[in-house]
Amino acid sequence: MAGEKGVKLLDFWVSPFGTRCRIALAEKEVDYELLEQNLKDKSELLLKSNPVHKKIPVLLNEGKPICESLIIVQYIDEVFPGKSSILPSDPYARAHARFWTDFVDKKVPSSALLMLKLRKGEELEEAKKDFKETLRTLEAELGEKKYFGGEEFGLIDITLATYEPWLRSFEVFADLSVEKECPRLVAWWKRCAARESVAKVLPDPMKAHEYFCTRRKKLGID
Amino acid sequence: MAGEKGVKLLDFWVSPFGTRCRIALAEKEVDYELLEQNLKDKSELLLKSNPVHKKIPVLLNEGKPICESLIIVQYIDEVFPGKSSILPSDPYARAHARFWTDFVDKKVPSSALLMLKLRKGEELEEAKKDFKETLRTLEAELGEKKYFGGEEFGLIDITLATYEPWLRSFEVFADLSVEKECPRLVAWWKRCAARESVAKVLPDPMKAHEYFCTRRKKLGID
Repeated sequence: MAGEKGVKLLDFWVSPFGTRCRIALAEKEVDYELLEQNLKDKSELLLKSNPVHKKIPVLLNEGKPICESLIIVQYIDEVFPGKSSILPSDPYARAHARFWTDFVDKKVPSSALLMLKLRKGEELEEAKKDFKETLRTLEAELGEKKYFGGEEFGLIDITLATYEPWLRSFEVFADLSVEKECPRLVAWWKRCAARESVAKVLPDPMKAHEYFCTRRKKLGID
Repeated sequence: MAGEKGVKLLDFWVSPFGTRCRIALAEKEVDYELLEQNLKDKSELLLKSNPVHKKIPVLLNEGKPICESLIIVQYIDEVFPGKSSILPSDPYARAHARFWTDFVDKKVPSSALLMLKLRKGEELEEAKKDFKETLRTLEAELGEKKYFGGEEFGLIDITLATYEPWLRSFEVFADLSVEKECPRLVAWWKRCAARESVAKVLPDPMKAHEYFCTRRKKLGID
């Protein structure tokens, strides 16, 4: 793959991890080729580019693969100048951004997936309780700020904004109104979704919902 | 805490996460005060410094807290010049170092703890199989290199070197000879342990083993 030109992203349209990379590339105004992957029949390119995890997203820059969404986003930030930085330049502010990004990454994806996957019942109520606790912690950290880092859209925002299209599905499948629980966080989610770099790459919520419905049927949940 | 001077590390002597920070501080030749914590009766300083996770290690720099070991190590790398960098300067090499550090962080601590915690039996055999697979993947990545990044000791080395004092305990508790499974990896572990910055902060293997024995007795394993 060495010697290949340009930037390519191996992705799957509804993946919040892939969406993180697409937002970062849009923020930096990088032209790239999107290589949509079939996760049921993984391409040789995907297996060769990410032999350890065999997962999307993978960024290829001049043929060189970078794997794991948050590592890709930081790489994009370091390599492409763009108009502004995704991570702040002050080391303490960087550590703070990395701390909350790590918190989101460890807590939100697994909980959010559970919200879509569990039937109603005790198990779902337990998972909802955990998820609400996570969201409240994030809402408290956001406070009255425009973005998590203050006035500038950054790494924490990119990592969490990708769940905006899922909010309506949480209501349908888990009877969870995130807006009722965390109105400031939902206002932030809407603010992010209206931002050009995010708006142009976020999956359509209705299409995402249809996809979740199909997955639930296949998994025998509905 | 603002206005306080100097660097302090809230730590617990046997913690591999705390050891990561101590190695990084030693690499950068930073003078600091070690504040050993009682994890059974957490100090107000720890709870105030890390209210989200309430865990060691926490680095205090001029009174400002930084939490999560790998975030602390990167912060130390960015703030203190020292003789050399912990992360390479090339963005692709940085992404590569972050990828393998993330791999170690996601796979090794949980598996290593299981090696110490499980009685002999099927569950232990299953855990050993997973752990050996992880170690073999790491040994293949190390290859014939001196350190994971090549000639320079760096982030991946810091993250994994902290388990050197545990190797003998794996043999005793899990009947696992890492040396037999992964001789090159063990040679690397010894090379790291002989490095000044590592040698002076690694816990004594015999004391660590005694601590594990006591924990196992308390947990009713032995």
